[in-house]
Amino acid sequence: MHTPKGYRFATIEANLKYSGRRDLALLVSDLPAAAAGVFTTNVFQAAPVVVAKSMLEARPFARAVLINAGNANACTGEQGIANCRHTLELVGDAAGLMPEEILPASTGVIGMQFNMEKWTSAAAPLAAALGSNTAEDFARTIMTTDAFPKLVSRTVELDGKPVSLLAVAKGAGMICPNMATMLSVFITDAAVDPALWQEMFRAGVEESFNRVTVDGDTSTNDTVFGLANGASGVTVTGANRERMQQAVTAVMREIAYMLVQDGEGATKVIHINVTGAAHTADAERAARTVGHSPLVKTAMYGRDANWGRIVAALGRSGAAFQPEDVVVTMCGVELFRNGQPTDTDFDTLLEPLLKERDIVLDIELGHGTGSYTLLASDLTHEYININADYRS
Amino acid sequence: MHTPKGYRFATIEANLKYSGRRDLALLVSDLPAAAAGVFTTNVFQAAPVVVAKSMLEARPFARAVLINAGNANACTGEQGIANCRHTLELVGDAAGLMPEEILPASTGVIGMQFNMEKWTSAAAPLAAALGSNTAEDFARTIMTTDAFPKLVSRTVELDGKPVSLLAVAKGAGMICPNMATMLSVFITDAAVDPALWQEMFRAGVEESFNRVTVDGDTSTNDTVFGLANGASGVTVTGANRERMQQAVTAVMREIAYMLVQDGEGATKVIHINVTGAAHTADAERAARTVGHSPLVKTAMYGRDANWGRIVAALGRSGAAFQPEDVVVTMCGVELFRNGQPTDTDFDTLLEPLLKERDIVLDIELGHGTGSYTLLASDLTHEYININADYRS
Repeated sequence: MHTPKGYRFATIEANLKYSGRRDLALLVSDLPAAAAGVFTTNVFQAAPVVVAKSMLEARPFARAVLINAGNANACTGEQGIANCRHTLELVGDAAGLMPEEILPASTGVIGMQFNMEKWTSAAAPLAAALGSNTAEDFARTIMTTDAFPKLVSRTVELDGKPVSLLAVAKGAGMICPNMATMLSVFITDAAVDPALWQEMFRAGVEESFNRVTVDGDTSTNDTVFGLANGASGVTVTGANRERMQQAVTAVMREIAYMLVQDGEGATKVIHINVTGAAHTADAERAARTVGHSPLVKTAMYGRDANWGRIVAALGRSGAAFQPEDVVVTMCGVELFRNGQPTDTDFDTLLEPLLKERDIVLDIELGHGTGSYTLLASDLTHEYININADYRS
Repeated sequence: MHTPKGYRFATIEANLKYSGRRDLALLVSDLPAAAAGVFTTNVFQAAPVVVAKSMLEARPFARAVLINAGNANACTGEQGIANCRHTLELVGDAAGLMPEEILPASTGVIGMQFNMEKWTSAAAPLAAALGSNTAEDFARTIMTTDAFPKLVSRTVELDGKPVSLLAVAKGAGMICPNMATMLSVFITDAAVDPALWQEMFRAGVEESFNRVTVDGDTSTNDTVFGLANGASGVTVTGANRERMQQAVTAVMREIAYMLVQDGEGATKVIHINVTGAAHTADAERAARTVGHSPLVKTAMYGRDANWGRIVAALGRSGAAFQPEDVVVTMCGVELFRNGQPTDTDFDTLLEPLLKERDIVLDIELGHGTGSYTLLASDLTHEYININADYRS
């Protein structure tokens, strides 16, 4: 684990909703960190999303990130916003921070107000725990229906000196049973100008978090925060920027992959690579239509090289191409060309390969140079079990 | 059953793919009928779609509709088109019809060429059977994975005289395991000018077939044909047009409802009524995003009044509205208003209602006068069973 310098973690059992497990996590940077955030595009935005966005618009620096699991504080109206701000005051007082230095995020049931007494009791023990927990504890604490904690780190050398990057994330379906989902926190000890950091951070998110799908649903709480505190003594500038960007994007891609791998009930990660589109937008359209198609997703679960469902999805995607120019290749085996299935005995060839977790699906549209890659999960019995659990 | 005058039906076991069941169906109008067709918008179009479209563009009249089940003749290239035309010649010769008077449609596996020897053997017995079968036999013969035959008829009085309308359809998922799907044939004994008939027919399709969804996938073969042969002696004109349009649309709506009811593995028909949108397009956007959401569909299967998944889907639909203006009502019980869940004990109130097949979901966006209704199926264990059947 390459934990960036100058960060401390605290995780406690606050009993906000869960009992018998840690559900409140705080991360503090010893130095003020350049701060970036990317939020859900859903019209319905949870209270912590509204609060964090306005904080980052006011000043692009932060000292801490505070996350609770169990209650998403979404669809809670003005009271929810007031409660969110009050939690920042409580924790700020206990930890010696200004409320406006603490970025909030929440995940859990929606439409329910916080129990502020529990929050009041939690603030002091949370502050006292700072430094006694690890990033992995943090990753575990923010889980809801996740099957495993998600944590990625690496070190990159800039100007001959090491810089560390670390990301944690939670999120299994885009919205679990009444749960709001995807949260991630990315930290580094590089020093970066806030405007540049925002730009690099957004570029990384576009290449990673924005290119995965479990069920196409986006929640009221989706949030990715990024802090760069400069504790390594290395500054990101024009000369080393490209190298840092590569490391940021690579770490984000790894953690985004884990989100798909842990998609609700998922058994597969389908790597959909669309090439030859008229432009990037068309490539994305084609990739998303295939990646969201329930028929393609169930076929992958069923280990079925069902080219028909793939081309049918492409054909309704709205992407421009001629049917006879399309080539569909699965795990290196060509399934479809010249408007027809190939003569290959692809079922036999693919049988062992479709048992693997990772399935590579290459789609060439033969219409231009636009390309796009999307990671998608499959659609399984377990997805239905998780999401259609009879209430009584 | 109100079978329109002047139509005869034939159905036989042609063993084109299935054995032990009828798989080839012919419908002949004694008089030349004004003919209309609406086809899949998929870029990949099956041979019979290509052929039928060009026939209707050349002349808007037909005498017959020929449908086979088991082989969709899709993704079969030039050979598939030649084979399709050849089947029309074979059946035309046997039945005393010109090939260009017979509209073709196919459903079944894709990427496989017809067995033309079987077609050659089938033509004479098919022609010989004309008049010995019923519309219900026709509906049964075109089934693939359908759980029940789909047939609707009614009589309407125009100018004091009866006119009959009848529709048959097949289609369970939009694409079944390697199967291409939705076919429907609509016949009436009214006399209608072909241009007017095309217009009325399209208006009906827009209000019915285009407003249902099972899994959002559209196939290479989707086709709806309409014949109006005038055998009733009643002509549709300016004066009675509105009444005829209402009957056409009503019959189409009934048969489209059956398609959702028989959606693969479906246990529910969700009636999604969006009102108060900025315009129709926004209302449709909102309805489709809710109707395609796997989380909403699994919640309905699970009899769960999960307002959170509904508002999250609305929030990412792209429709314009203010979160606090949205009102969500399920089976008459208000779930969500003022940006928050209502105080009603809706789980208790809805418990008996959510056991019913039909679930009415009213969504008011409070932003304008645009409205749209979509019928959607739920997403169930059985859908996964049907579509993810392990090959071996």
